[in-house]
Amino acid sequence: MSHNEDFAIIAKPGDKVSDLSTPRPIIDEDRLAANIARVQSYMDKHSLNFRPHIKTHKIPALAAAQIAAGARGINCQKITEAEVFAAAGFDDILITFNILGAEKLARLAALNDRIAALKVVADSAVTVDGLAAHFASRKPLTVLVECDTGGGRCGVQTPAEAAALAARIAAAPSLVFGGLLTYPKIGGAAEVERFASETLALLKAAGIDCPVVSNGGTPSLFDAHLVTSATEHRAGTYIYNDRSMVRAGHCTEDDCAMHVLATVVSRPTADRAVIDAGSKSLTSDLLGFADFGTVVGYPEGVITGLSEEHGVIDLSRCNGKRPEIGEKIRIIPNHTCVISNLFDTMVFHRDGVVTRVEEVAARGLVW
Amino acid sequence: MSHNEDFAIIAKPGDKVSDLSTPRPIIDEDRLAANIARVQSYMDKHSLNFRPHIKTHKIPALAAAQIAAGARGINCQKITEAEVFAAAGFDDILITFNILGAEKLARLAALNDRIAALKVVADSAVTVDGLAAHFASRKPLTVLVECDTGGGRCGVQTPAEAAALAARIAAAPSLVFGGLLTYPKIGGAAEVERFASETLALLKAAGIDCPVVSNGGTPSLFDAHLVTSATEHRAGTYIYNDRSMVRAGHCTEDDCAMHVLATVVSRPTADRAVIDAGSKSLTSDLLGFADFGTVVGYPEGVITGLSEEHGVIDLSRCNGKRPEIGEKIRIIPNHTCVISNLFDTMVFHRDGVVTRVEEVAARGLVW
Repeated sequence: MSHNEDFAIIAKPGDKVSDLSTPRPIIDEDRLAANIARVQSYMDKHSLNFRPHIKTHKIPALAAAQIAAGARGINCQKITEAEVFAAAGFDDILITFNILGAEKLARLAALNDRIAALKVVADSAVTVDGLAAHFASRKPLTVLVECDTGGGRCGVQTPAEAAALAARIAAAPSLVFGGLLTYPKIGGAAEVERFASETLALLKAAGIDCPVVSNGGTPSLFDAHLVTSATEHRAGTYIYNDRSMVRAGHCTEDDCAMHVLATVVSRPTADRAVIDAGSKSLTSDLLGFADFGTVVGYPEGVITGLSEEHGVIDLSRCNGKRPEIGEKIRIIPNHTCVISNLFDTMVFHRDGVVTRVEEVAARGLVW
Repeated sequence: MSHNEDFAIIAKPGDKVSDLSTPRPIIDEDRLAANIARVQSYMDKHSLNFRPHIKTHKIPALAAAQIAAGARGINCQKITEAEVFAAAGFDDILITFNILGAEKLARLAALNDRIAALKVVADSAVTVDGLAAHFASRKPLTVLVECDTGGGRCGVQTPAEAAALAARIAAAPSLVFGGLLTYPKIGGAAEVERFASETLALLKAAGIDCPVVSNGGTPSLFDAHLVTSATEHRAGTYIYNDRSMVRAGHCTEDDCAMHVLATVVSRPTADRAVIDAGSKSLTSDLLGFADFGTVVGYPEGVITGLSEEHGVIDLSRCNGKRPEIGEKIRIIPNHTCVISNLFDTMVFHRDGVVTRVEEVAARGLVW
């Protein structure tokens, strides 16, 4: 055995999903295709460029399907992810990260030489100056200004800061100002629009052209058109969907393309089932939930705890049948993107029959 | 790039840890060696067989160091982990899991043929009967009865159930009853001892020999001698240690051999630092904490949130210096075992100079 698992050992087309060894995430092809089509149709309707974030799946074949549906360009979160996708032929890549440090800058420059359109973001003079220095006498790099529009993570805090940083980028001979990057809180379209439009006014007054306003996120994706300044939207999770997206109102449980297949391995008490999916399969991401996923077919079952290779389901609220030892069940996970990062391969199926096994090509790569 | 990362790209002996690209878990060789020695010395003093759990590191070279120090046998949580370690020459392996299903049983039988001493656990008649049927006309399999001694996960609930299941195993021609498996709550040695001694009395009355009482866990490891019925102890986390083990009183921060190296990539406000280690590097395991790790050198910094590739540190309680953009910092993670499951390679160092890079050989293997 090695990390290059023999795909045929895991599954091959025609196998029944119900015969797969567990724990194993599985992707429903029809739901996947419907999720891609539904979101692309919305973006087309509102004339928004759509740039899928590949962090959710890390699989070039899925990004190709997103592009085939009409997406233009992709979004990566790490240079190493971008390297995998560049090698697979993608030539318009936005890396939404502040790139710092000699080793990363060297790899970034090599990548910039290799593909047609590479863009990164920056939210500080330190990052901009580092990029400007490293790209001097190289092919210019396009840099967007990351704005904190309520997410409370990275990003300049005010339109004035955004405009000042844009001017700093525009003034650097080795850099090209590529636009603004925003990310709304759930329901925060108005806040994004206020930040973006105020910044655009400042940029206009300064004579700085802003070619792109890139907004993002799946939870409020169908509010994207309310950000009238935006020229594009980025989203990742929509392709698989998960329990957190159901809660956000983005989709229903029937739109969740990823299930985690697990086996009941113990029923120590009448009210307790233990499955073979723990934090090394489902991750401990709660995303505000108190439990670790939805048990398909047993909606009253509550996954109250995970250890590394076990999940404990409290059945005390189940009035009808309860899962038996040996029974295979499916979990709708809280968060799909982190699960993709645990498995070297992903199994796809249609109506419970395996269609393909894809390598999760950008899984687990360090920067 | 592929999953078989070029180790030399990541690090090579002699490199400075401070030059590594981040995020990157690093292991302090001296702390590692001291952790191995300290626990083995305790087990030797109390004449307890020590069986390290390899889930924490998943690296054969580290298990070899544990065996060289005096451990006898290893503990795995999955058949695929055991396959990797069997291929590396380990021939006494306990898999602490209820094995069910045709595919897993076939692999288990192949493994049983390959190594000298393979043992599994069971906590139900369904599991025992499945093993008994599959191993009929094969080399007999040794099975321990898993007992729920307060953990609330798998395991028979009472000494009477334990004795009955032991009798069922002993009566199966293809199985060998291997003993009892227990796991204490923190501070729960007395409960383990009560359960084990009552079961041993029942077994004695039934004329069933019980060769092993295997107790486990790092949090209460130094109470292992209080379980006077125990013949062996299993533990994994002690080799690296982590924040949860500091809280449990097992060790101090200075005994934590794993740090996660991260870079400050943004300082959007005076009170906020953002690092490049998120849930895909640190995992979301809280283990009862409200935050995601201890920031070495900035003890007042609180890692309040993780997204996939970012961690947000609240600096509002820091009175002295605050980390700058570009600064590399170290995190003592809440839980080491799940971090080993994210990285294909692990970097070791002594006093900040890289000593070796090991493949995390059993990482991410599905069953």
